[in-house]
Amino acid sequence: MSADNGLLAAVYQGSNVLCDKEHNLSLMKDQIKRASSDKVKLIIFPELFTTGYCLPKGSEDIERLAETQNGPSFQKISQWASEYQIGIIYGYPEKEDKDGSVYYYNSAQFIDKQGSSLSNYRKLHLWPSTDKDFTPGSQLPDVVSYEGVKIAMMICYDAEFPELVRAMVLKGSQLIVVPTADTYISTATIMVRTRALENHVFLAYANHCGRESHIKYAGLSSFINPDGDIIVSAEDKESLLKAVINVDLCTPKRPSYLDNRRPELYASIAV
Amino acid sequence: MSADNGLLAAVYQGSNVLCDKEHNLSLMKDQIKRASSDKVKLIIFPELFTTGYCLPKGSEDIERLAETQNGPSFQKISQWASEYQIGIIYGYPEKEDKDGSVYYYNSAQFIDKQGSSLSNYRKLHLWPSTDKDFTPGSQLPDVVSYEGVKIAMMICYDAEFPELVRAMVLKGSQLIVVPTADTYISTATIMVRTRALENHVFLAYANHCGRESHIKYAGLSSFINPDGDIIVSAEDKESLLKAVINVDLCTPKRPSYLDNRRPELYASIAV
Repeated sequence: MSADNGLLAAVYQGSNVLCDKEHNLSLMKDQIKRASSDKVKLIIFPELFTTGYCLPKGSEDIERLAETQNGPSFQKISQWASEYQIGIIYGYPEKEDKDGSVYYYNSAQFIDKQGSSLSNYRKLHLWPSTDKDFTPGSQLPDVVSYEGVKIAMMICYDAEFPELVRAMVLKGSQLIVVPTADTYISTATIMVRTRALENHVFLAYANHCGRESHIKYAGLSSFINPDGDIIVSAEDKESLLKAVINVDLCTPKRPSYLDNRRPELYASIAV
Repeated sequence: MSADNGLLAAVYQGSNVLCDKEHNLSLMKDQIKRASSDKVKLIIFPELFTTGYCLPKGSEDIERLAETQNGPSFQKISQWASEYQIGIIYGYPEKEDKDGSVYYYNSAQFIDKQGSSLSNYRKLHLWPSTDKDFTPGSQLPDVVSYEGVKIAMMICYDAEFPELVRAMVLKGSQLIVVPTADTYISTATIMVRTRALENHVFLAYANHCGRESHIKYAGLSSFINPDGDIIVSAEDKESLLKAVINVDLCTPKRPSYLDNRRPELYASIAV
């Protein structure tokens, strides 16, 4: 696989251990090292990967596990990014002290290969039953230029809303990165493929696999090209998936959906 | 198949003959009669079915083939609707004289079982290369109540825009009817399934099959349920597909995408 004409990226799909941050960070370090030795320039981990997704409900548990954006987990991951010269996107539970109150977010952070945070994103569309301990974000994702590719992060359920993906592509995104924790096969097999196709955009879908608490994850992490085709899929096993993101291929084979929209008719979906 | 708890609808997928309206209307009559004898309450024909899709380019040909909304083809089809007590949706090239000018539209008309026009819809998103003789419509589809189901029509490329389908479901549509003339397999296999799933709505996809002019149609007409599953598909052969539209099943299995939207964040897609 040559990355001469693009960004060589990787998605890690594997089982972390619920509430065992030390184990999960160690697993992340192993995969970061492995990806770096494969010349990967960006590695992507699933939603809430540092802690596991099925966090025990109640503020005491969340309080113990959540960290600030630049907390101890960030410090370690940032150091590995710099040491192994690789960008890293990972999901984690974020804690913020603000105006005398504490807020918790389901977040993803993007660290560059120098170890600096390029973007921190707070999930906008919370999954009603299991995300109830979190506060929804209030800001659209950033569009970050990294190694020649314009990238936006969103988290799991976010990507199921065509409005959000469209908004990010209109802002210039060429690659949508989706750390997720999904149990539905149809999300991977039809929905995120449609998101890529209808926007002429690459998409990286990073899911958990195996069982966690009462949940059986769907796996099926993948890279999807701007024609909606799966470039590579992890099926349901532990895997370090790799793909070259060549933005020259965002030029659509079909007529451009972006050019042929009729936004003057869409007002009712934004009120 | 029982229609006790819903609307028994049918899609006809078959090859009409380009520019031979007499033949195509005769074919439509045969299928209307056949569907009626099967107790179907609504039959749906593909895009531009009265004339074929690949109309010769240039105003003289279009002028010869297009009709007003209540022109001779409507008169015949309306009579059959009444005679066979069946609703009919069909695509046709529409001609309108207005303010001293003549306009041509790629339209679909919905006739009730009494033979009255319930709605006439002009395609909003024209396919750039082949729809060039038509004027784009300027009005969102109507939502029509028919036999207990709220129905909106759109045509082909229209349904590939998530914004339009969302707008119609927010207006109350429970069934999206899509007369189409599509050559892409991915539209049927992933895109319109995603439209149904992300809106918790039924969708009827009525395509041509076989060859017409330089085009090989994808077929794959289908009824899709609100979970994004294909209820029944025509593959690539002539077929009268039937399905019961039971709107009680629009209650989503997943959390409601409509309830969990964040429209205050979507302004950029409607300007």
